[in-house]
Amino acid sequence: MTHLFDKPDTFAADAMRGYCDVHARTVRLTQGGVLRATPTPQGKVAVVVGGGSGHYPAFAGYVGQGFADAAVTGDVFASPSTRFIRSVAVKAHRGAGILLGYGNYAGDVLNFGMAAEQLRGDGIDVRPLAITDDVASAPADNQARRRGVAGDLAVFKIAGAAAEAGKPLDEVERLARLANARTRSFGVAFAGCTLPGAEAPLFAVPPGQMAIGLGIHGEPGIEETPILGASEIAALLVQRLLDEVPAQAGQRVAVILNGLGSTKHEELFVLWVAVAALLRDAGLTLVAPLVGEFMTSLDMEGCSLTLTWLDDELEPLWLAPCDTATLRIGADEGLVSVEAVPDVAEEERTSWPPASTASAAQGRLIADGMAFLAAALASAEDELGRIDAKAGDGDHGQGMTRGSTAAAAAAQAAATAGAGAASVLGAAADAWADRAGGTSGVIWGLGLRSASQCLSDEAPVDAGQVAAGAKKALDSITALGGAKPGDKTLVDALDPFVRTLSASVDAGLPLAAAWAAASKEATRASDATARLTPRLGRASIIAERSRGHRDAGAVSLALAASTIHALLDFPT
Amino acid sequence: MTHLFDKPDTFAADAMRGYCDVHARTVRLTQGGVLRATPTPQGKVAVVVGGGSGHYPAFAGYVGQGFADAAVTGDVFASPSTRFIRSVAVKAHRGAGILLGYGNYAGDVLNFGMAAEQLRGDGIDVRPLAITDDVASAPADNQARRRGVAGDLAVFKIAGAAAEAGKPLDEVERLARLANARTRSFGVAFAGCTLPGAEAPLFAVPPGQMAIGLGIHGEPGIEETPILGASEIAALLVQRLLDEVPAQAGQRVAVILNGLGSTKHEELFVLWVAVAALLRDAGLTLVAPLVGEFMTSLDMEGCSLTLTWLDDELEPLWLAPCDTATLRIGADEGLVSVEAVPDVAEEERTSWPPASTASAAQGRLIADGMAFLAAALASAEDELGRIDAKAGDGDHGQGMTRGSTAAAAAAQAAATAGAGAASVLGAAADAWADRAGGTSGVIWGLGLRSASQCLSDEAPVDAGQVAAGAKKALDSITALGGAKPGDKTLVDALDPFVRTLSASVDAGLPLAAAWAAASKEATRASDATARLTPRLGRASIIAERSRGHRDAGAVSLALAASTIHALLDFPT
Repeated sequence: MTHLFDKPDTFAADAMRGYCDVHARTVRLTQGGVLRATPTPQGKVAVVVGGGSGHYPAFAGYVGQGFADAAVTGDVFASPSTRFIRSVAVKAHRGAGILLGYGNYAGDVLNFGMAAEQLRGDGIDVRPLAITDDVASAPADNQARRRGVAGDLAVFKIAGAAAEAGKPLDEVERLARLANARTRSFGVAFAGCTLPGAEAPLFAVPPGQMAIGLGIHGEPGIEETPILGASEIAALLVQRLLDEVPAQAGQRVAVILNGLGSTKHEELFVLWVAVAALLRDAGLTLVAPLVGEFMTSLDMEGCSLTLTWLDDELEPLWLAPCDTATLRIGADEGLVSVEAVPDVAEEERTSWPPASTASAAQGRLIADGMAFLAAALASAEDELGRIDAKAGDGDHGQGMTRGSTAAAAAAQAAATAGAGAASVLGAAADAWADRAGGTSGVIWGLGLRSASQCLSDEAPVDAGQVAAGAKKALDSITALGGAKPGDKTLVDALDPFVRTLSASVDAGLPLAAAWAAASKEATRASDATARLTPRLGRASIIAERSRGHRDAGAVSLALAASTIHALLDFPT
Repeated sequence: MTHLFDKPDTFAADAMRGYCDVHARTVRLTQGGVLRATPTPQGKVAVVVGGGSGHYPAFAGYVGQGFADAAVTGDVFASPSTRFIRSVAVKAHRGAGILLGYGNYAGDVLNFGMAAEQLRGDGIDVRPLAITDDVASAPADNQARRRGVAGDLAVFKIAGAAAEAGKPLDEVERLARLANARTRSFGVAFAGCTLPGAEAPLFAVPPGQMAIGLGIHGEPGIEETPILGASEIAALLVQRLLDEVPAQAGQRVAVILNGLGSTKHEELFVLWVAVAALLRDAGLTLVAPLVGEFMTSLDMEGCSLTLTWLDDELEPLWLAPCDTATLRIGADEGLVSVEAVPDVAEEERTSWPPASTASAAQGRLIADGMAFLAAALASAEDELGRIDAKAGDGDHGQGMTRGSTAAAAAAQAAATAGAGAASVLGAAADAWADRAGGTSGVIWGLGLRSASQCLSDEAPVDAGQVAAGAKKALDSITALGGAKPGDKTLVDALDPFVRTLSASVDAGLPLAAAWAAASKEATRASDATARLTPRLGRASIIAERSRGHRDAGAVSLALAASTIHALLDFPT
């Protein structure tokens, strides 16, 4: 949805006022658009670009030194009027003619075309150029009918750099046309955008589907398919562009991975890993790639990939310095052409303290127990997430699965290497903390690590050590987090568990029976957390969120306690 | 929704790989986070920041010269683990101690706190600092319990600049704590975010409602209200922050207007206009304000406002150069502290050619006709939008309303000033084109302007001139757009209208009867457009979209023709 506006019909104009206010260093407002705020010398070709609003940073965000001289900005998704195009262009003109750039849409073609005619009547040399990079919008043999999308940025950047370098209009136009001929874009969309004041999206993509080749105003795409994974989407985008390598193209490409509005930077970075690998596998060198929002469509969900095949003329222009609200390239940095970032290898521990045969056998039992635990928590992941979402951020199930899965793997590796009980449990503890992160990760890691310190790699573990370990886990967790019983944390379940376990062991019960009694108590206590009144304290941030709900941490603690059957086989 | 991922549980790590690949100039990947790619001298205090993922550019985007030395990044919405915080911090350390910054969340407090203890054990001087800027999360008298949101950026930027300037750890910590004490944020949310792999949003805001003070992980806010206009939201945000001006605060503030993910730049710019006006009215000077995405929450819809009250110590640090993926401030630009952008006044025409009494009377009739037309199009706006949305971008109704309303106002102004028929219609034409923009704007503007050229400000208009004007409008529109009957444009209705009008007038019918016959023909033709097979040609981009649907332009032309009753009163 588009929510922030006072009057829908002044949305675009209000946005331009705000933009020029914030970016007063680079742009200033004029009727119908924006001009550079910085002085521009007479005799420089003016690059004037434009189109409808709703696509920020297109087009006002492209204005600044090294890039465009002015942008003419229409209403949302509507071409600016002929009169405003003409008046903005006249103000930007510095006596050396104008390159007039816009996407290839009917309204823009009409208005920019009429403005060009009028400007010629004013005695100004004008070269209109409609950008045609969207391969989904017309077949390869009819490129002149294609729409302009994120390729606008690449072509206008190159034209702007050529103009800034003092090239005459003929050259600026030739280079811009060359860049346009070498630029291809292809995109997918997951959901439509909503015009300011509209109550429903302009168009819809069915839930679970993605629209391949959909235009930035919702123009029909090529087909709809179920939503694919990032690697598959990367393959789709890359393949379609590599199917249409322009004539005389080399191996160096400018790349723009563009988000349409609600598809976030982190998603684009995930997609980039796969896109970059495919492009590099195809032998291409990726020159100063851009990943972010460069041609949006209000709050549309989706993304597009743009390639501009460079050559010795175009590459320096793509890399040349510029200073706009969107894009700042310094004089010394353009030459970075990235290579793949190597994977960060996990540092794996491979040696363990010597263990007795009996302790190594218990280590294997602990590893089996961690595997049971991980399986149980994975099964409960959604339910734990739902409980957590009522009061917290809903990721408790995911965190517990991540942590326990990593812990089980680490414990298995340690046990396989012959480690003893203390080392196996310690390995599980560290892996849990590292991989789970968050509050539950640090608490579980600390608790298991503390418990492991009551065990040994030599002497077989007995029931007293297990009870002592549980007690030490509780003590270290409460010391760290400051939570007391009643604060609605896992301590609400852990505390009665530890008390029952210790009392039962002290009373001479075998470990299996003592553990069963303690688990039952933990489960009962976790059910009761919904009725607790949270108290203020160091843990009060969590406590306050959970008023009236079961605490997910207590529930998962109880679940874990009930699951670790392997421990029950310990000799006692 | 979060759509782009391969495996939900590697989303955060994959995003960091992609981020470091794209931004290899400034950052490099390490286990658990990112480090500066640029050399940092021994003896500089290290600023190490971090927290969960899902908040990009927080925290990895803050790393670079003049800002943070490293970021530790956990899983989505989950604190990084103690071990990774420690290992990243050790790598960033340059022998002068570490400022360790994070938002005040339970998991972060635990993990960063434990890491700080361990680092002290390693012999490194570490100062942990939990950011507490979110005024919605706890009362003013309990600031230590507040959460950290976009104020992280302000505090870390200031700390980073202090460290870069060579200040010792005591000073960096003092300045960072001062900045935190002077920083306040307040936000609203319109809709929740979706964790990677989740099928439903983490939390929901009821449709039409906004959640005031909602946290960036969905922590409960203060209250829910119906969604307000931008000016009212601005007032809410500004007032809440000005209610809590920190002690010893002056009149100069750093400002961050932050989008949470799916609230777009243009919306933020609209909101900025109102926010900036209120802050300036309160006597504040806005120093290098930032409007954009600086602390997101995946794809959450909403925004927050942050103020940091500056003084002679803090302001130079806020303005100091930095070079990160998020924020680039050059050495010479920080001193801009913006003032309000003046409104751009519409240039209004005030003098008209002399008109005869009869023509001035007809001018008033034309103005009345334009008012009828604007009212009719406004009533039909939603319907025209729906028709257009089936094949186009759904803004036809809005464009026609904007254009005809402006045309009616301009015609009224001209008629009131005594202009003749030709001038009134010409004024309407220009206003329509300027205000409507887009394809329909240029076409209607051109058509009305052409028609006006067949009228006069002297001799009263007769039926022949009206028919000639309609013919000239058709000719100029087809010459401009290249559309022929059957291309599914307004020409499909205009062409039969003009032919019928001319034939009827030629046959001696009075204008009223001829116009009525022509209007009927236009309406019939507009209904028939759904059955047309669009042809390729200059208008084919539009034509292809509209296969199987009525053409909105033809429908609105027919509606307009049927509405202009005032013309029928012309003497014939």
